[in-house]
Amino acid sequence: MVLQAVERHTENRVPSPVEWLSEGALRLVDQTLLPARLEYLACRSVGELADAICKLMVRGAPALGVAAAYGLCLAADQSASCDLTSFLDDLEVAASALRSTRPTAVNLGWALDTVLAAARNASDIVEARTAIYATAQRIERDNEEANSSMGEHGATLLHDGMNVLTHCNTGPMAACGIGSALGLVYTAHTQGKRLHVWVDETRPLLQGARLTTWELGTWGVPCTLIADNMAASLMRAGRVDAVLVGADRIAANGDVANKIGTYGLAVLSHAHDIPFYVAAPTSTIDLDIPTGDVIKIEERHPDEVTHHGGKRLAPEGVAVYNPAFDVTPNRLVSCIITESGLLRPPYSVSLRENKN
Amino acid sequence: MVLQAVERHTENRVPSPVEWLSEGALRLVDQTLLPARLEYLACRSVGELADAICKLMVRGAPALGVAAAYGLCLAADQSASCDLTSFLDDLEVAASALRSTRPTAVNLGWALDTVLAAARNASDIVEARTAIYATAQRIERDNEEANSSMGEHGATLLHDGMNVLTHCNTGPMAACGIGSALGLVYTAHTQGKRLHVWVDETRPLLQGARLTTWELGTWGVPCTLIADNMAASLMRAGRVDAVLVGADRIAANGDVANKIGTYGLAVLSHAHDIPFYVAAPTSTIDLDIPTGDVIKIEERHPDEVTHHGGKRLAPEGVAVYNPAFDVTPNRLVSCIITESGLLRPPYSVSLRENKN
Repeated sequence: MVLQAVERHTENRVPSPVEWLSEGALRLVDQTLLPARLEYLACRSVGELADAICKLMVRGAPALGVAAAYGLCLAADQSASCDLTSFLDDLEVAASALRSTRPTAVNLGWALDTVLAAARNASDIVEARTAIYATAQRIERDNEEANSSMGEHGATLLHDGMNVLTHCNTGPMAACGIGSALGLVYTAHTQGKRLHVWVDETRPLLQGARLTTWELGTWGVPCTLIADNMAASLMRAGRVDAVLVGADRIAANGDVANKIGTYGLAVLSHAHDIPFYVAAPTSTIDLDIPTGDVIKIEERHPDEVTHHGGKRLAPEGVAVYNPAFDVTPNRLVSCIITESGLLRPPYSVSLRENKN
Repeated sequence: MVLQAVERHTENRVPSPVEWLSEGALRLVDQTLLPARLEYLACRSVGELADAICKLMVRGAPALGVAAAYGLCLAADQSASCDLTSFLDDLEVAASALRSTRPTAVNLGWALDTVLAAARNASDIVEARTAIYATAQRIERDNEEANSSMGEHGATLLHDGMNVLTHCNTGPMAACGIGSALGLVYTAHTQGKRLHVWVDETRPLLQGARLTTWELGTWGVPCTLIADNMAASLMRAGRVDAVLVGADRIAANGDVANKIGTYGLAVLSHAHDIPFYVAAPTSTIDLDIPTGDVIKIEERHPDEVTHHGGKRLAPEGVAVYNPAFDVTPNRLVSCIITESGLLRPPYSVSLRENKN
């Protein structure tokens, strides 16, 4: 269901991508329409939310966590069960549907598990419903606070006059609040540091071209859009001082799964002695997996590569490989920034300490 | 002027991008419409050809060389001068207009200089016209033969079962005949070697997605289309055995100017111990420039980056950096393949020997 764009997009504020409405619906910005149109979508069922996630109307690991948590609020609203066991079963079914939408980002599963655990601790349905809403709200609030803390910690790495290159979208649209990695830029900018951002367009879905440029423009941070394959020559020309990306999952050893193209940027950064920073809230860290090699990489539809602006430009029937993510080995990561601070190698130690 | 597509596109033959018609017009394939439509364009004046070059209806360094040579045939046809000096002046004006269309590829200027030199040797206008036509035809024929020889030499580097990654378009559409770099794949394929080609889509103008996949499909060579930023993860997974690209200009020390994104691929190849091959006819070698640092890099219109399939997807007014080429330093090039053979480092020696 498309909601009217009730909120005027004002000049210096990016709207929240995920908002729980008092009338028991989850309002999403339809990010597939940005920046041309700011339109909202109200999800009133888990099915509608799962569909919106699959279609990338909402995306970005931390935003998916918040959306999934509220998805269980929708499930709690929808459940007609009269006993706690059946109610919890309904929640499990909803969680399973949401979990299967995107396999790579860990925040989504983490948020579902956190809300489910809170529900399971309740002694009746009323208490469970209260716990579910409270936990979802806490996840949203904690995430926003984590972003602000990350911004403060990470901004210490960004100096006046720097040219920062970023990939995909890690601003408010991806992570709520001030965003994850892009929140560092926002924070440094509000501290008066003059930064310029090179924005990778981020094929195939152009989150950089569509969302990051729009967010930076809203904030008033100077930026320049490039095609992904232009980053290397900028690095060689000494025009990139730092590379800053987010993460969809960080393994216990510091390997980072993130948007396809991140690994290539990390290799290029290393070759040009440019620091490569990863900023992500602790909810992105998955200590249950020892390395990035076991992270399942989502492959998406060939049309995302063959079509441009809705128009097929590649020949009919051409084979396509379209992985949505790649894995960057820990040795290429200069620093991982979480809400707890700046983590340095060896990440197997610093990530474990961060999580505790 | 749009010609009717008189020639049916048959299954296993890619049409020539540049063809001199007996009625004194230069017929071009309008490459901007491929692969959706195969349409021809007849240029009857230098202005029409210059416009077609600027709009990339014809592109690719060697094809530009052939087109430019025939452009001077058009100028010779058009000239109403009655004395040789004025006639040569008309040619100079035409050459200057054609030369200014694309600054990076050297073949265009080389072809113009070669035809002009032939004209200057003539003792009257009739003799000059004959020399101009003959030289243009020789440039076309020599280029096709160079491509075939390059194919034979370079195919020795491609082994049965290999996965070759390529960037941009270096097939017949870029270089006439069997193409430059892609001609190596064609030759190896006709020798019975089973190759698979990863095709970089090559943003912003998608020459890989539109032209290379189409040419490989016509030849029956298996290929898979990827976005440019996916190459690195394929390399890390051991799924790329060689990278093969063309060149727009090769400096005396072996630095290679080529389509934007080439340099990044070269760094990635080096980091993954994958051979990085450059195939280009001798006309691409510019011994007059010591290194790639002095090569002028063409910057193109921001719309190429902000628009997709004719539709604006980035915010209005966003700053864009859109260089059409980059320079790969010689140390990252494993081998340069010309019609004379396989050139190895130090290129300052092997390129000079090749040119002699």
